Amino acid sequence: MSGAAKGPGSRPEAAGPVRTAAVIGTGVIGLGWTTLFLAHGLDVRVNSRRDDAEQAVRDGVGLFAATLPAGPADPEELLTRLTVEPDVERAVAGADVVQENLREDLAAKRELFARVERAAPGHALLLSSASSLGVDDMGADMADPARLMVGHPFNPSHLVPLVEIVPGGRTDPDLVTRAADFYRSLGKTPVAVRRPLRGTPANRLQSALFREAVHLVLEGILTVDELDAVVTGSLGLRWGAIGPFRAFHLGGGPGGLRRMLEAVGPKMAREWQHLGTPDLDGPAVELLAEQAQEAYGSGKHAYERLAAERDARQAAVLRALRAAEDPA
Amino acid sequence: MSGAAKGPGSRPEAAGPVRTAAVIGTGVIGLGWTTLFLAHGLDVRVNSRRDDAEQAVRDGVGLFAATLPAGPADPEELLTRLTVEPDVERAVAGADVVQENLREDLAAKRELFARVERAAPGHALLLSSASSLGVDDMGADMADPARLMVGHPFNPSHLVPLVEIVPGGRTDPDLVTRAADFYRSLGKTPVAVRRPLRGTPANRLQSALFREAVHLVLEGILTVDELDAVVTGSLGLRWGAIGPFRAFHLGGGPGGLRRMLEAVGPKMAREWQHLGTPDLDGPAVELLAEQAQEAYGSGKHAYERLAAERDARQAAVLRALRAAEDPA
Repeated sequence: MSGAAKGPGSRPEAAGPVRTAAVIGTGVIGLGWTTLFLAHGLDVRVNSRRDDAEQAVRDGVGLFAATLPAGPADPEELLTRLTVEPDVERAVAGADVVQENLREDLAAKRELFARVERAAPGHALLLSSASSLGVDDMGADMADPARLMVGHPFNPSHLVPLVEIVPGGRTDPDLVTRAADFYRSLGKTPVAVRRPLRGTPANRLQSALFREAVHLVLEGILTVDELDAVVTGSLGLRWGAIGPFRAFHLGGGPGGLRRMLEAVGPKMAREWQHLGTPDLDGPAVELLAEQAQEAYGSGKHAYERLAAERDARQAAVLRALRAAEDPA
Repeated sequence: MSGAAKGPGSRPEAAGPVRTAAVIGTGVIGLGWTTLFLAHGLDVRVNSRRDDAEQAVRDGVGLFAATLPAGPADPEELLTRLTVEPDVERAVAGADVVQENLREDLAAKRELFARVERAAPGHALLLSSASSLGVDDMGADMADPARLMVGHPFNPSHLVPLVEIVPGGRTDPDLVTRAADFYRSLGKTPVAVRRPLRGTPANRLQSALFREAVHLVLEGILTVDELDAVVTGSLGLRWGAIGPFRAFHLGGGPGGLRRMLEAVGPKMAREWQHLGTPDLDGPAVELLAEQAQEAYGSGKHAYERLAAERDARQAAVLRALRAAEDPA
């Protein structure tokens, strides 16, 4: 994360407040960002080559505006500040921030960011929602990738507070700070990693837990919905309230994490050896998918019901935590 | 989990409702159970050899009564139904349920359950809060361990809904059902595992995530409090609302978990190979403990403040989820 050499005038130090954002892509992540940006008063230009882009954006904003963290917003009011622009150069011209949300296709993103670099203002932050592609790879065709970084949200992106900022080897640390400030201005909780990393911390942590979850189901210990009940009834609740280190720090009593790790650390590390290492082969996918289908249903109707339930529950948890934080 | 041969009269099929519970141990888990049992109208006999047991129980009930899931209760009213009994045989005589909460000391628990078996009524469920000891090991000195099983709560046990029921090889499945009914009558979410297991599902899942958390901090990617912010800002929030399989089922859109795993399963399984395998050696403990101390403080005062914060936040999340479930 060392600063790149700065060409004179290429990135004015005194960038003003963010007024205009370009959102590239109209998948569920792009639509979530679009709604959140609009709800915070930004002018938003959505770039998409979909024929039905205009309708998709209207539908998405209509859906997500109902479950914004700060409470429902009027979609019609939000849409007055929205433009759909099929041409990427025109979409990013004049933008203070570009948030890209294409599929994880490296070649497409390399080409895109080279074009965006030329068309966007010199002060614009270039942020990618990519969850697994490396920043240096995505910026390989740019003249100067100092303002490119990952700003990775969690789905649904209008609702979940975390944004993980992952810089590349040539990203300017000052611009990481500016990106964090921008996300904070949207009510987000940005966390910038301190060293380059494969993936993002949250995805790696999720992956670690999910591996053991798959193991337990494939071993016939629990079904997928029983496993889900275990998580929502204990770990999720705990980790919604406090993180794993703070939880173990408390588990150690007044002696804190030191006491905890001195008491049970060696045993804990021994148990790591007994965690599962399942294969996600064809029969495994079949078993997991069958159980999920039986427990949760599938198809458009079930999906919409489940998604609305998830969003309502996440919004309720968020409101409760905000109220607990600030009882006034 | 095959049923043991049943001696005539040894376990009356028609056990009445649970009216009296014996709680063995006055650590934080035992005190949480005690408070919850009292709040649900049970007579409770707490067994402890601590000199200050009476005071410890009064203090614990006073503390936990304020954050019960259904709302605060009057500790003085609760304590009218409580007896502290230093003799274990007298404590369990007449109990419909025995909930044991000693430290994870196998020899002590083996001896205890052999004594409890002789002194408790034949219909009494014998439940251990043990998180890592095996049921068959704990019941090795019993004449008939059919009514012994793990009923593992999460700390704080008066508040977190999940109870994991782990039977041994000779536990009677009918009594697993009865234990689940008992926990459900307390407002808990019992989940019984279907096959013997080393540890409990929640502890194994927690362990898997914590291993990667330790890895990320030891690698200098994030500090312990940044790691905690990642979890509370994304995964905890998500998993408080919905479990990991349901989340990925939704991630697959209308095609559900099948679509999701067919699309990204192979990549996900490849990334499992890149998760960390840290050592929890002396320098590692030092680094983690130092960071936790700096971020969260230590000592009695910090501990009490952090614990109260955790309980208030968990209670707020629980209330919000209950309200989201049942909007009426």
